[in-house]
Amino acid sequence: MKKYCFGVDVGGTTVKIGLFESTGVLLEQWEIETHTENFGERILSDICDSLDAKLMEKEISLDEVEGVGIGLPGPVLEDGTVLQCVNLGWGTFNVAEKLSSMFHGLKVMAGNDANVAALGEAWKGGGKDYDDIVMITLGTGVGGGVILGGKIVTGYNGGAGEIGHMHVNDEEEVTCGCGRKGCLEQYASATGVVRLATRYLAATEEETKMREFGAQITAKDVFDLAKAGDRGANAVVRQMGEYLGKSMSSIAAVLNPQAFIIGGGVSKAGQFLIDAVKDVYRETCFAACGDAAVHLAKLGNDAGIYGAAALIVK
Amino acid sequence: MKKYCFGVDVGGTTVKIGLFESTGVLLEQWEIETHTENFGERILSDICDSLDAKLMEKEISLDEVEGVGIGLPGPVLEDGTVLQCVNLGWGTFNVAEKLSSMFHGLKVMAGNDANVAALGEAWKGGGKDYDDIVMITLGTGVGGGVILGGKIVTGYNGGAGEIGHMHVNDEEEVTCGCGRKGCLEQYASATGVVRLATRYLAATEEETKMREFGAQITAKDVFDLAKAGDRGANAVVRQMGEYLGKSMSSIAAVLNPQAFIIGGGVSKAGQFLIDAVKDVYRETCFAACGDAAVHLAKLGNDAGIYGAAALIVK
Repeated sequence: MKKYCFGVDVGGTTVKIGLFESTGVLLEQWEIETHTENFGERILSDICDSLDAKLMEKEISLDEVEGVGIGLPGPVLEDGTVLQCVNLGWGTFNVAEKLSSMFHGLKVMAGNDANVAALGEAWKGGGKDYDDIVMITLGTGVGGGVILGGKIVTGYNGGAGEIGHMHVNDEEEVTCGCGRKGCLEQYASATGVVRLATRYLAATEEETKMREFGAQITAKDVFDLAKAGDRGANAVVRQMGEYLGKSMSSIAAVLNPQAFIIGGGVSKAGQFLIDAVKDVYRETCFAACGDAAVHLAKLGNDAGIYGAAALIVK
Repeated sequence: MKKYCFGVDVGGTTVKIGLFESTGVLLEQWEIETHTENFGERILSDICDSLDAKLMEKEISLDEVEGVGIGLPGPVLEDGTVLQCVNLGWGTFNVAEKLSSMFHGLKVMAGNDANVAALGEAWKGGGKDYDDIVMITLGTGVGGGVILGGKIVTGYNGGAGEIGHMHVNDEEEVTCGCGRKGCLEQYASATGVVRLATRYLAATEEETKMREFGAQITAKDVFDLAKAGDRGANAVVRQMGEYLGKSMSSIAAVLNPQAFIIGGGVSKAGQFLIDAVKDVYRETCFAACGDAAVHLAKLGNDAGIYGAAALIVK
């Protein structure tokens, strides 16, 4: 194994880049702008320029670089073919092959950004003691990734790890972003928690400080109030925990992972959230799966560059 | 690869054994009794005796045998450790190592019987054109197996593929065999279909031939009546299809498999069942997973010996 590798996490606004020792030590990280105009035709060459500049600055020769891992905001097949990245303006092509040909023929591996972040957490974050983890990212939406034997499960169309679109509620009338109704994302994302809070307020006369926030209430407000003992906020957290915990039980019945790792903005609620979810999980899961660990993610926004590096060196 | 291998499927009453060419041709199959007395201490030596006798009968030398695969009715870890087989009277030990030491040091691989049957279907049955399948076995209970990249996903405690214990109904008041409430098995197994039928009859005055069967009605009766156009029976099949199809949607959101393979006694209802399930699946699954194939299993009770052989030669 050569001494260095790069991890690249491409978003719609910025590209995060990390220079790593192949052992997993992050030496330096920086960002460049994502130029999405003209179908994102500059994105890969901008990345190459930035990597070349870094190698020159640090006086690292190409011979010392194992390769470049890259995470992308769209479905990516195991061979590095990206099916479509709407946010980047890209269609379908083999991004691993293309970037390799543009960057001195070095080894390049590509993956979906959520899956790659899961790999990062499995490598150096909340899941680093486990081979088989399921990561669930609670952000604006709910995403995730499945890591088995230390490798990403990609799925046939790159659609594995779309945990936010597990069906959890037959009664839902509002349509999810995916076009279906009753997806986990509609209750366990930041907007999902707000939806549950709003519904709770409309359905009850219960005194709760949540009312003071009105329509501006955020998921963070709900969790802060719940921690402070507000009964209504705790009822909302419990609902959210029910949806998430039962989804985890269903995942466990299929995969029996060693650990679940919970990340994303909503997970800033910390151990309080983990406890709420873990209780439901323990009550509803198949007995053999009851000892799965449930941990917070640890790498935050850096999970993507760690995971991209892991594509190369893990 | 040597020319022959054995596939052994151990049940609580009989042990099914197949002699295969390593290419997957089943040359001969037979059964021996499972002697479970004295903590099942004879089971492995009975198997060895039977294999030795077959080799002698067919004039096959040990040098021509690649190994022995064995499926067992309990959780089995990747290294061949069986955690407990209540039906065999066994506790925890490494069955692969033990059988190998008893059978001339040949390679032995072990797996859970439902997972091994899934591997058999993936190798030579309904899933033979696919690398990544999820098998769902609708029998007295609901079992299954997850095959990714042609290999069994075992899970941390050997608990992967327990699809029957996915949680699908919050309202259930009857306890499942696993101790929880609202498991898929409670609606999609043979007894589950009967449960749905009984509830349908109790809840409605609708005229249906199901009434004529009374408490003796079977899942087969329900499907036969549904095929013949009975409205009530079709309503029951639709309910069962809803539970199963939505579970498949949730599995797809996590794993995005190429194909689902439906087996077990209930699947004798054939394409009629597949169509009922497929419709719900297509309506409820995440869009990227919509093109997953849904097929009937093909190997019936032989899936276990095929899968056991596949543990060795696939």
